[in-house]
Amino acid sequence: MNGIFREHLEKFITVNDTEYLAIAAFFQVIDVRKKDNLLVEGEPCRWHYFVLNGCLRKFFINDKGVEQTTEFAIETWWMTDNMAYEHKRPTDFYIQAVEDAAVLYIDWETQEQLVAEFPQMERYFRFVYQRAFAAAQIRLKYLYDFSKEEIYDHLCRMQPAFVQRIPQYLIASYLGFTPEYLSEIRKKKRS
Amino acid sequence: MNGIFREHLEKFITVNDTEYLAIAAFFQVIDVRKKDNLLVEGEPCRWHYFVLNGCLRKFFINDKGVEQTTEFAIETWWMTDNMAYEHKRPTDFYIQAVEDAAVLYIDWETQEQLVAEFPQMERYFRFVYQRAFAAAQIRLKYLYDFSKEEIYDHLCRMQPAFVQRIPQYLIASYLGFTPEYLSEIRKKKRS
Repeated sequence: MNGIFREHLEKFITVNDTEYLAIAAFFQVIDVRKKDNLLVEGEPCRWHYFVLNGCLRKFFINDKGVEQTTEFAIETWWMTDNMAYEHKRPTDFYIQAVEDAAVLYIDWETQEQLVAEFPQMERYFRFVYQRAFAAAQIRLKYLYDFSKEEIYDHLCRMQPAFVQRIPQYLIASYLGFTPEYLSEIRKKKRS
Repeated sequence: MNGIFREHLEKFITVNDTEYLAIAAFFQVIDVRKKDNLLVEGEPCRWHYFVLNGCLRKFFINDKGVEQTTEFAIETWWMTDNMAYEHKRPTDFYIQAVEDAAVLYIDWETQEQLVAEFPQMERYFRFVYQRAFAAAQIRLKYLYDFSKEEIYDHLCRMQPAFVQRIPQYLIASYLGFTPEYLSEIRKKKRS
């Protein structure tokens, strides 16, 4: 797991070597290739994913048959369809690798055993969800406050490496643009 | 606290009478009148609020000077500006009582002491944030997938008591409508 998971745990909690090995044993690791699906619409959402390296995206297919990306997860981000994961319901989403990726995964029951045996993991997940919720609140404010072009500008300013890393048609899908419209905006920005 | 807070805790954790009294002692209670502000733009966000009864809303004032409501909190919902609360930053938001309300509140340091002394409260807050994040993910999907009119229809179907309870101009502010436009939609729905 090349240390990245332990480093992330230690941002929020203290774990010694023995504890870390015991905690890590609750997780499985999978290597996925670009475009592989980890979750498919209509299936029960069994897994909670943590990105060790690479990038995932979450999307749904709208009434017009268009893939609408709602989230990305790069290194140290967790991703799942949280409502479907907790309640073991079929999901409306796909989770797909944007790049070749290595991903930790755990199911709900195992995660519950983990937090029961290692109460500091309750604290860890409390912080993970707290920060994810805070980020979602900020994103909701942007959706109210900014035009899509302003959100793109903001993304370029705040997350330049991310915008460089992700294929432009997926950035367009995330912003709700057509790829053609995003290309026009980019030309305007350069001129 | 008329039992509502304890009932909410017991949805997620077990607390005996002695523990409950000790946990409750970490919180303060305030009665607010309709239109009172609990949080004002530009101030540091010190408090995390839990609604015992009544209703709060969170809003910001946009560039055009219009109040844009982003969230409501009724009984058993927590509310704050989470990013500003954790990092003790000035907030961009107002939190205001929509109805006369009774509200529990706690500051970040006291909340941290609470979870240190009562580890089951880590579990409680983990669930609170997890569900809030899951709800925010669903809301983001709606914003991508539905027109504003469809979101209003959905709100009327899924939360009829809530739509009845909240003044229509605030429902309009939440959906990003003008009150006049919401009134037109309502006329169309009745005809």
